[in-house]
Amino acid sequence: MRIIKKVSQMQNLAKVLHGKGKSMGFVPTMGALHEGHLSLMRRARKENDVVIVSIFVNPTQFGPAEDCRRYPRNLKKDAELCNKIGVGYIFAPSVNEMYPDGYSTYINIEGNFTEVLEGKSRPGHFRGVATVVAKLFNIIQPDRAYFGQKDYQQLLLVKKMVEDLNIPLKIISCPTIRESDGLAMSSRNVYLGAEERKSALILNQVLESTRKSLKYRIADARRMEDRIIKIIKKEPKVKIDYVEIRDWKDLRPVKIARKGCVILVAVWIGKTRLIDNVII
Amino acid sequence: MRIIKKVSQMQNLAKVLHGKGKSMGFVPTMGALHEGHLSLMRRARKENDVVIVSIFVNPTQFGPAEDCRRYPRNLKKDAELCNKIGVGYIFAPSVNEMYPDGYSTYINIEGNFTEVLEGKSRPGHFRGVATVVAKLFNIIQPDRAYFGQKDYQQLLLVKKMVEDLNIPLKIISCPTIRESDGLAMSSRNVYLGAEERKSALILNQVLESTRKSLKYRIADARRMEDRIIKIIKKEPKVKIDYVEIRDWKDLRPVKIARKGCVILVAVWIGKTRLIDNVII
Repeated sequence: MRIIKKVSQMQNLAKVLHGKGKSMGFVPTMGALHEGHLSLMRRARKENDVVIVSIFVNPTQFGPAEDCRRYPRNLKKDAELCNKIGVGYIFAPSVNEMYPDGYSTYINIEGNFTEVLEGKSRPGHFRGVATVVAKLFNIIQPDRAYFGQKDYQQLLLVKKMVEDLNIPLKIISCPTIRESDGLAMSSRNVYLGAEERKSALILNQVLESTRKSLKYRIADARRMEDRIIKIIKKEPKVKIDYVEIRDWKDLRPVKIARKGCVILVAVWIGKTRLIDNVII
Repeated sequence: MRIIKKVSQMQNLAKVLHGKGKSMGFVPTMGALHEGHLSLMRRARKENDVVIVSIFVNPTQFGPAEDCRRYPRNLKKDAELCNKIGVGYIFAPSVNEMYPDGYSTYINIEGNFTEVLEGKSRPGHFRGVATVVAKLFNIIQPDRAYFGQKDYQQLLLVKKMVEDLNIPLKIISCPTIRESDGLAMSSRNVYLGAEERKSALILNQVLESTRKSLKYRIADARRMEDRIIKIIKKEPKVKIDYVEIRDWKDLRPVKIARKGCVILVAVWIGKTRLIDNVII
């Protein structure tokens, strides 16, 4: 396995691999790898000749008051994990490699879709995500790119961008991986203290019980949201950002909660922001 | 020569050509082809195995009050011209192929650079240009793309986008082609009546004489702009939009007109808007 830090080097390598007819699977990450990331890599390994993982904490997707600086970084440990799975290359550029002085091109997915949920709570977040993902796609030129359903709105947004801009690759969406007690894997989970970690379990518990209760019946979406909010509020350490039931394809609001909906939740636990979701 | 109308078909073809190791030169146009376009195609023919020309009047780069609808269209004549030069493929998609219902992804080059000159006079114009050019690059995946210096700000903008987004191709800039009397070739020249056509000559005349006068000396940029404005104003049919002297690399304002500057002019003649420029 090789670690590549220069854009030009990565771009040349991609050309060589394409020239040899190798199929390329790409897993974009911000490092601090956990089982969720590893599951994407294993899937990519199965479906492609070569797997490339990017590790880049992208400053343009963090707000000024967000955790870009303290976001966990450990390239050595990440590289060991990648190596075990059979990743061929890690692309780990510096911020200056990706955004040199005078950088000024940004991609916006306009309209409702990016202005709700995460887009509303984190203004500019998706502009940063779309831009860095498009750059990484152009640098690496993969045949397939793997994204987790944990960041559900991001997954839909990347799919939309790829479709709109005719980027020639396939987005593969992969299920959320959870700890044995149900907490969705996230690099931010390390921020949680022991008590906080315990209260975070409420997210998966309430999403899972709601999913089960909606499997064979329908319900008023607003009432169902209120019910979820009420249950989460019983955990004193958890502060709700949003709880919303929306259409799973395009996140448009729905009146009735039923099959084909997605329930999306964002909360603060202390200084840590967690998101989770479940598709019904 | 083949005319291709579907995005998916063009994308598949590009893959096949790449697989065969063919180098691909791309000339994006809005049709109504003239000698300026043909010079780009000839250069592309020389430097690549296969030449692909796109013909697409891109609605997103026109303002609501602009000439998108009446913009000249003649695919049959354009195809004949392309064929003579040895173009391999024309990509001529419909508006709906390029912007299907629900389309919402746009590329912005932020900052000064797009807010001056054409960007100021035509709000949203460069957002439309950047977006359609990125789409065409993704669909056609050329090794080289050819742009004329006539649309100088557009040329710089496309170069900037390619650099910022790491799009893996080379932008080749080609000199402005002029009629024998000096008028810069433009698809919009056909709008001009005989008298208008004559008064349009003032643009090249004043740019050319200024270029000569600045070849071996320097001058105050504001004074030089005023001098140009004065000369153009002698033509009663010509209404000035802007006359500006700027740095040729990034269009930043300059105090001194000298080598390394570009003089950019936009005027209205009747209902027709013309632009021209000269690099000193």
